[in-house]
Amino acid sequence: MSLKLYQTISHRKRNMLQSLIPTNWRLRPPSRPLPLDLRPLVAESNILTPTELSITSSHDATSLSALIRSGELTSEAVTTAFCKRAAIAHQLTNCLSEILFLPALEQARAVDAEHHRTGKTRGPLHGMPISLKDTFKIKGIDSSIGMTSLAEKPARENAALVDMLLEQGAVLYCKTNVPQTLMGLDSNNHIIGRTLNPRNTLVTAGGSSGGEGALLAMRGSILGVGTDIGGSIRIPAMCNGLYSIKPSSQRIPFSGQEIGQLPGTEDVGLHASAGPMATSARDCELFLETIANAKPWENDPRVAFGTWDSQGELGTKPLFGVLRTDGITTPLPPVAKVLDEVVQTLRQRGTEVVDISAPAFKHCQPLANAFFSIDGHNHTFDLLESTDEPLIPWLSTRLTRRPPMDLSQVRDLHVRKAALEKEMLGIWKDEKGRTIDAVICPVAPHPLPGIDKWNGVGYTSAFVLLDYPAATLPVRDFNESDMQDEIEPGLEILGGWDKRNRELWTGSSETVDRAIYLDTKLSVQIVAPRLQERRLYQALAYVDTLVKQTS
Amino acid sequence: MSLKLYQTISHRKRNMLQSLIPTNWRLRPPSRPLPLDLRPLVAESNILTPTELSITSSHDATSLSALIRSGELTSEAVTTAFCKRAAIAHQLTNCLSEILFLPALEQARAVDAEHHRTGKTRGPLHGMPISLKDTFKIKGIDSSIGMTSLAEKPARENAALVDMLLEQGAVLYCKTNVPQTLMGLDSNNHIIGRTLNPRNTLVTAGGSSGGEGALLAMRGSILGVGTDIGGSIRIPAMCNGLYSIKPSSQRIPFSGQEIGQLPGTEDVGLHASAGPMATSARDCELFLETIANAKPWENDPRVAFGTWDSQGELGTKPLFGVLRTDGITTPLPPVAKVLDEVVQTLRQRGTEVVDISAPAFKHCQPLANAFFSIDGHNHTFDLLESTDEPLIPWLSTRLTRRPPMDLSQVRDLHVRKAALEKEMLGIWKDEKGRTIDAVICPVAPHPLPGIDKWNGVGYTSAFVLLDYPAATLPVRDFNESDMQDEIEPGLEILGGWDKRNRELWTGSSETVDRAIYLDTKLSVQIVAPRLQERRLYQALAYVDTLVKQTS
Repeated sequence: MSLKLYQTISHRKRNMLQSLIPTNWRLRPPSRPLPLDLRPLVAESNILTPTELSITSSHDATSLSALIRSGELTSEAVTTAFCKRAAIAHQLTNCLSEILFLPALEQARAVDAEHHRTGKTRGPLHGMPISLKDTFKIKGIDSSIGMTSLAEKPARENAALVDMLLEQGAVLYCKTNVPQTLMGLDSNNHIIGRTLNPRNTLVTAGGSSGGEGALLAMRGSILGVGTDIGGSIRIPAMCNGLYSIKPSSQRIPFSGQEIGQLPGTEDVGLHASAGPMATSARDCELFLETIANAKPWENDPRVAFGTWDSQGELGTKPLFGVLRTDGITTPLPPVAKVLDEVVQTLRQRGTEVVDISAPAFKHCQPLANAFFSIDGHNHTFDLLESTDEPLIPWLSTRLTRRPPMDLSQVRDLHVRKAALEKEMLGIWKDEKGRTIDAVICPVAPHPLPGIDKWNGVGYTSAFVLLDYPAATLPVRDFNESDMQDEIEPGLEILGGWDKRNRELWTGSSETVDRAIYLDTKLSVQIVAPRLQERRLYQALAYVDTLVKQTS
Repeated sequence: MSLKLYQTISHRKRNMLQSLIPTNWRLRPPSRPLPLDLRPLVAESNILTPTELSITSSHDATSLSALIRSGELTSEAVTTAFCKRAAIAHQLTNCLSEILFLPALEQARAVDAEHHRTGKTRGPLHGMPISLKDTFKIKGIDSSIGMTSLAEKPARENAALVDMLLEQGAVLYCKTNVPQTLMGLDSNNHIIGRTLNPRNTLVTAGGSSGGEGALLAMRGSILGVGTDIGGSIRIPAMCNGLYSIKPSSQRIPFSGQEIGQLPGTEDVGLHASAGPMATSARDCELFLETIANAKPWENDPRVAFGTWDSQGELGTKPLFGVLRTDGITTPLPPVAKVLDEVVQTLRQRGTEVVDISAPAFKHCQPLANAFFSIDGHNHTFDLLESTDEPLIPWLSTRLTRRPPMDLSQVRDLHVRKAALEKEMLGIWKDEKGRTIDAVICPVAPHPLPGIDKWNGVGYTSAFVLLDYPAATLPVRDFNESDMQDEIEPGLEILGGWDKRNRELWTGSSETVDRAIYLDTKLSVQIVAPRLQERRLYQALAYVDTLVKQTS
């Protein structure tokens, strides 16, 4: 039987990717069933030297970049270590979409030589390997976003952020896997396959920046850039126990990305954001501050003017708000519990936290959803059909070709959006009229679920609709005692989403084994007003410090 | 013959407006033909006391507001003076659309009492009378924007900026006239009639913020707020010899305005801006700084975060660029000449100015025009027909009902816009890669033309498309010697717009009497990159100072 076009392209693409992993970085076929936690396999492979293990394991980007700038480490050494580790991570988790190891090492040597010659570095990211989600176009490289119709069509120019990172001396060594079409919360497609969660292969690695999340969790990268239009940075960050910030859409250059939409779609709909995913809060600042101070508005006309210092600040005695529910899906017991633990920690340390009610919150997710289907997914289906590519199973029950909206329908969406934006402004003042510095809320209404089980993005997509910057903060692991908590008897079921969400805890036809959640990370989301990324970062760091002191 | 509905409404509305002018502020019917320059009639009317004449004639808003805050003048005294002068201005030029004298005087007494009681003022605008274009909704007052179908429908709530101005202690005493539908460059409609240019009734007062322009030229206001989506602040500012700044669209709260479009239209198209019109450059700063520092993003979710200090700054040794043509309409001799005079003045004083070529500039105006007709003007015609209102003569040959664009057409406009935005970024660097601090260019390709003769908005609408802040700077009067300059023989005619523009200088079937331009103000436009209003203001003040030193 002859292969369909999409299969031919997939095979070729996969083989090409495989061929770009040097043979001595290849793992021996596993002689035993793989463990749930894939991370220990890195050291066991003996591919990395002890120094390389230390480089990739013992730092965050902030400390590592300081060592490069001081000359204690070369970019070449650091890049080699991360290339090796990324190669291993990919072989175990399917986290990469493009491999650029050879050009990256050349680039690393070039920035090292420049450093040596001039005695100067280009800035905080000088010589730092940085991983990028597949959406970012790099000249000569594909941005196939998990669709064969977009594969083997190398980009003609760099995305604006790629140019900026290169100007800053960063080293680009790989791009990371995404769901077919980007419209998924688990990163699976017919080209690369499914990205696994390195820490627990039974649960999802998240999406759409899922490859990025898994790569970072494997420490095959120390600083990655994802994109988010419904939760696509924050969801995989939660899945992989990472810090992340989804900025407001005008903060980080976004132009020159492949997003699988007809050009101009975002301009009549919602705008996605690019932002950092990292292993520490301060690495999010490292990225955002470096880009902000490199005048990104001179590279991408859609970026708002404003250096890092002019992106807001946390009050000296900050007041936090807590939003315990989006009004659509009541958080399951462990999610409500960890949120409350954070609130109690803050209060115990003398920081005031007030409960916020936001009746408009529940209208955000349905509206965001409507915006996502302005085109009726026609372009997506056109792309798929051009190579006979079927939808992946998860999407096949969710995505259908529909008539595109007409202009008056789109206008109406914007009218509803403007009303919600106005109403939601109210969450930034408490009842006494005091300014609320930042809001804490869940990332999702459930802990980290099984593969393809993520349920709803109301807690994340709302802040795309509103264009608020939002961060994830990993708090603690789900533990045995969390398994014992039950949903309050008689608690109203709010609707279909809420019902399905409950099934992740109580089961439906089949019983849920809550043990699946063990050792997965419980996270909270922190949110600030639009275009106040520095205020958000300071809130994230503030809460992180208090939470860490406690744990 | 019975009156048509629009006539009935017009009469009622006009009578109502007339009735709000106190009888002792009414002018005696003129016993002689009115002079070309209406301004001297204010003093001749003897309606204002010598003190009131001084208050309205001898200050800008900055000095006047200082006197109110120091207690040397009360808001009541200042408001009374401007109400009187506005009443006279309206009787002579048809510049008002709504009169709020009585509530304004009450408001003035209230802020005076607060000042007296607390010893404090609410800020720089405390007690200051400020005039607003008719588009700004004030609770209980019409925003009819020159259309009878929108008359007698008092607003249910204040526009966001109105709320902010009131919080700042400003006194709102009138709204000002606009063209029917706002889509005109001369402010004429069936309700109020045509606004005249106070300085020379033979030339246009401009539009769409034409009432605002005329009122300021009569000094019936000292600080006004207009709106601009094609040039509607800058054109009447030029017509009336005023300073003005059209900010980027996200700077000044715009929500809650009547713009005669279906809700949501701007969200799929171009966004208008609100900005100051004034008699000094520093009054533009007074307005922009006061609003920026009052956290407008907390009142209107569409406003970008950023206090005045974070809106950019001029380099210590600024480099200016000069754009001498938009590539569509070659400036007529006096326009090219005054632009060059400004350039020479800067150079003589040691400030570098480089010539810029921007091939993309000529594509901006056609694209902006396409954006303006997304709806095919159907809503406009629906509104007009609902009261049997005909188009005003100027619009009747320009506006037709067309099929609205479909979504794919609108997307295509945005794709073209993004490409132009990117290409135009190039104007902010010179050939050596140095930053150009601000760009100087014409406001229009012609001097101030006769009524209904404004030709083309390429020089102004481009900076709405690109969302760059742009200012007008009045330079000098057109004089006898300017009349002698001829268009370079053999100069190519660039197209229809250029041909019509030339006719304003050389005539066509009829000979042009260039004497019409005598004593009208020649202005230049100054432009800065997006969201850098402070940089723009500083550039405006810088050039203004050098030009004034010379003249």
